[in-house]
Amino acid sequence: MRGYSGLEVIFRRIAAVDEAARLLHWDMSVMMPPGGAAARSEQLAALKVIAHEQMTAPVVRDLLDAAEADPPADPWAAANLREMRRQWRHAVAVDGALVEALSKACATCEMVWRAARPESDFAAIAPSLAEVLRLVREQAAAKAVALGTSRYEALLDQYEPHGSTRHIDALFDDLAGFLPGFLEKVLARQEAAPAPMELEGPFPTEAQRPLAVTLMQRLGFDFDHGRLDVSLHPFCSGVPDDVRITTRYDEADFLQALMGVLHETGHALYERGLPAAWRLQPVGEARGMAMHESQSLLVEMQACRSREFVTFAAPLMRDAFAVDGAAWSEENLYRHYIRVERGFIRVDADEVTYPAHIILRYRLERAMIEGLLEVPDLPAAWNEGMEELLGLRVPDDRHGCLQDIHWYDGAFGYFPTYTLGALTAAQLFAAANRADGDIRPGIARGDFAPLLGWLRENVHGLGSMLPADTLIAGATGKPLGTDAFKAHLQARYLG
Amino acid sequence: MRGYSGLEVIFRRIAAVDEAARLLHWDMSVMMPPGGAAARSEQLAALKVIAHEQMTAPVVRDLLDAAEADPPADPWAAANLREMRRQWRHAVAVDGALVEALSKACATCEMVWRAARPESDFAAIAPSLAEVLRLVREQAAAKAVALGTSRYEALLDQYEPHGSTRHIDALFDDLAGFLPGFLEKVLARQEAAPAPMELEGPFPTEAQRPLAVTLMQRLGFDFDHGRLDVSLHPFCSGVPDDVRITTRYDEADFLQALMGVLHETGHALYERGLPAAWRLQPVGEARGMAMHESQSLLVEMQACRSREFVTFAAPLMRDAFAVDGAAWSEENLYRHYIRVERGFIRVDADEVTYPAHIILRYRLERAMIEGLLEVPDLPAAWNEGMEELLGLRVPDDRHGCLQDIHWYDGAFGYFPTYTLGALTAAQLFAAANRADGDIRPGIARGDFAPLLGWLRENVHGLGSMLPADTLIAGATGKPLGTDAFKAHLQARYLG
Repeated sequence: MRGYSGLEVIFRRIAAVDEAARLLHWDMSVMMPPGGAAARSEQLAALKVIAHEQMTAPVVRDLLDAAEADPPADPWAAANLREMRRQWRHAVAVDGALVEALSKACATCEMVWRAARPESDFAAIAPSLAEVLRLVREQAAAKAVALGTSRYEALLDQYEPHGSTRHIDALFDDLAGFLPGFLEKVLARQEAAPAPMELEGPFPTEAQRPLAVTLMQRLGFDFDHGRLDVSLHPFCSGVPDDVRITTRYDEADFLQALMGVLHETGHALYERGLPAAWRLQPVGEARGMAMHESQSLLVEMQACRSREFVTFAAPLMRDAFAVDGAAWSEENLYRHYIRVERGFIRVDADEVTYPAHIILRYRLERAMIEGLLEVPDLPAAWNEGMEELLGLRVPDDRHGCLQDIHWYDGAFGYFPTYTLGALTAAQLFAAANRADGDIRPGIARGDFAPLLGWLRENVHGLGSMLPADTLIAGATGKPLGTDAFKAHLQARYLG
Repeated sequence: MRGYSGLEVIFRRIAAVDEAARLLHWDMSVMMPPGGAAARSEQLAALKVIAHEQMTAPVVRDLLDAAEADPPADPWAAANLREMRRQWRHAVAVDGALVEALSKACATCEMVWRAARPESDFAAIAPSLAEVLRLVREQAAAKAVALGTSRYEALLDQYEPHGSTRHIDALFDDLAGFLPGFLEKVLARQEAAPAPMELEGPFPTEAQRPLAVTLMQRLGFDFDHGRLDVSLHPFCSGVPDDVRITTRYDEADFLQALMGVLHETGHALYERGLPAAWRLQPVGEARGMAMHESQSLLVEMQACRSREFVTFAAPLMRDAFAVDGAAWSEENLYRHYIRVERGFIRVDADEVTYPAHIILRYRLERAMIEGLLEVPDLPAAWNEGMEELLGLRVPDDRHGCLQDIHWYDGAFGYFPTYTLGALTAAQLFAAANRADGDIRPGIARGDFAPLLGWLRENVHGLGSMLPADTLIAGATGKPLGTDAFKAHLQARYLG
């Protein structure tokens, strides 16, 4: 236990540095004046390098070896030790120079991207992206050796521990087979009916925000331990005891910000519900990005686009904007919620077309990491994929391969977690409803306690105690698959 | 030079960690929900301990020795090396365990103080303060040996490099002799005239803020490199390229917030004007807390309570609140600006009575550090001092020794810098006006460029290149004294 308790001290400090960096990231997106950018990059790089140095110090290797030779009996401590080794393996696989080079290349590339995207100027960003890709490939090669996986899986493992391309391929191929035909049916049915009546604005921000706050509170968000702010791109950040979510208000369309807030609230409830006894320890962290996304999508898509939610929320919406009439009926609002449309932009996509956006990115980023696709060929490959998967001709790179920040910020291997999250959300929500018949009626009366209670017990409170597949199988009775997601789509869009 | 350039890399990283901590402090006071406090303390403690570890690593000692044996020829680099050694001496004087114990004791004591102050409950805080004092005395003893100074001077040196009690005693004794008689004369003259007409509110925050922003911009505050926010206690924080100041609006009294904003703007202009080529290096930092306070007081007290400032600002004030009439004349506004009154509370004090508050604290904290005064005897000693220095009987500890956070947060040796700053401000402002006859006329037309230009050249842009006394003598032609301050008071209050 000597080795193990020493590790707890060291990992606690590393986690505190990581938390500090998260707050600085939040500030950068929400508060920082533009002139602070260079200083902030330097601060974040320093924290990243320091955390990396602390993790890769020889003493950590020795303590890990000693602790594994005499492992703690407590199952949480044992799981913590396993997660420590996992984080350590990632850290030691790359040297400090690569960490720093990657951090700087990403910061530069992201800055160029911010200017290139609105101009649809892929040529301007291509050299920076090529440099990022070069370093990410180097990182992937090093981590693949350290983890004993393929290069792409080594990157995936950073976001989705133990993620496997074989499993993802099976799930995504299944969806790629199912969705086109399903989408046709949904669109045909949608076109056969009159369009929903317009929700006429404007919707002042001063009215949108209190409505969002009310719904957040009803869902269980605690403002003594969190904030809601405004940023260009909505996100959830902060730390479990101080969770920070953001949104962006559009006065012509309140549903966009509202559903975004509910999505981020799902992330926030997960963070807040992580096991308090294991704060600042690896086992106390969220169980990967797919699980995180499952919590946001479970709240946004499963719970808060349901008929039950509309029953509860419609009167609050009418009050918030002092409106009434047929457009504001539950039925009409619900029809807005389940509107489906082929589009170019991932973040605007509905849940039926969303997987196509992810499958495209997954295929392309794998090809890039495996050396089968180079940066100059990316736009053409993207556009070809969009035509194949969604039947859309991309007009320019702003609506194509320039739209998402991920690759320009060095995040390869992240995209699949969105659709893994959607599948997980559907499977968890179905299991929750089987386990507690009061969850759906609860939502209809604005009581989310039954749902949150089930999530706290089966997901949030487990932190990283279990591998994701074990957690899902335990909570739902079977491994992650596509059945629940398909059944959900079937019921909602063709039911 | 090998040694020196290695030091630049190490100190750059330590400074970046320190900047990160400053931003987290800002967030704690301005943005953080209450439930985030414990996590934040942990993050800040981790950063503090890491910075301390990096500074005290054996390699730094070796590099310092090597660099001093082969010093850089460039005078800025040479000064930087001198400041590195200074910071290093402070760091190695105390071990990591004391740094951590002090950090935790201060966090605890500050928390207890926040509850004890409004209740005027000194007994509740006494044990925590005694523990802080015990650790601070330990710190003072260790640093005194390392620096070759008295114990009190070792603490003073953290805030005012090379500060000496002999010099402070001479200045403060001079003021203590001059001020009581001067104050009597000012009060007699003030009472002989009718009181200024009331400025009748309310003054909505939405009108106060734009006025403050306008004046900040005129003074030279760049909102691309800074922010103005709200906090319980106004302060200036952030980093030179992202300076954050705060205020607190009182809708019954706009002058309090406004003058507070101008005060913090003085601090902000100093930070922003530090030499850009030496960011994240010791020589690029502000030249001690007395110099910092001189910049805030120069702006607030010297420049922005002048008749010239009122000439410029009165029309803006009338516009901001849509008011007019005799109460809003320049003459009446100016009389509000120069109102003098004996009071219990330091932060509410005018510039005539302020030094008495500081002299009291300076005497008491020296006695505490020197072991001549213990915590249980502090309230009585405080009250006795107030009676002697200002002729006031303190009604309760809330209006007495509980009012300031400093000691409860471990900051002993800080208080003298307020009055050293006031003396420096007067001496610098007088020299600036001698050097450039357009400074006062500039203020009257809202053009602060002549003043800011002189400050940039003679103070801000020098960073920590020179010791404070050399800087002052160079900029004003003589060592720091009380003459300019006394002449200023004489001219403003009895002229």
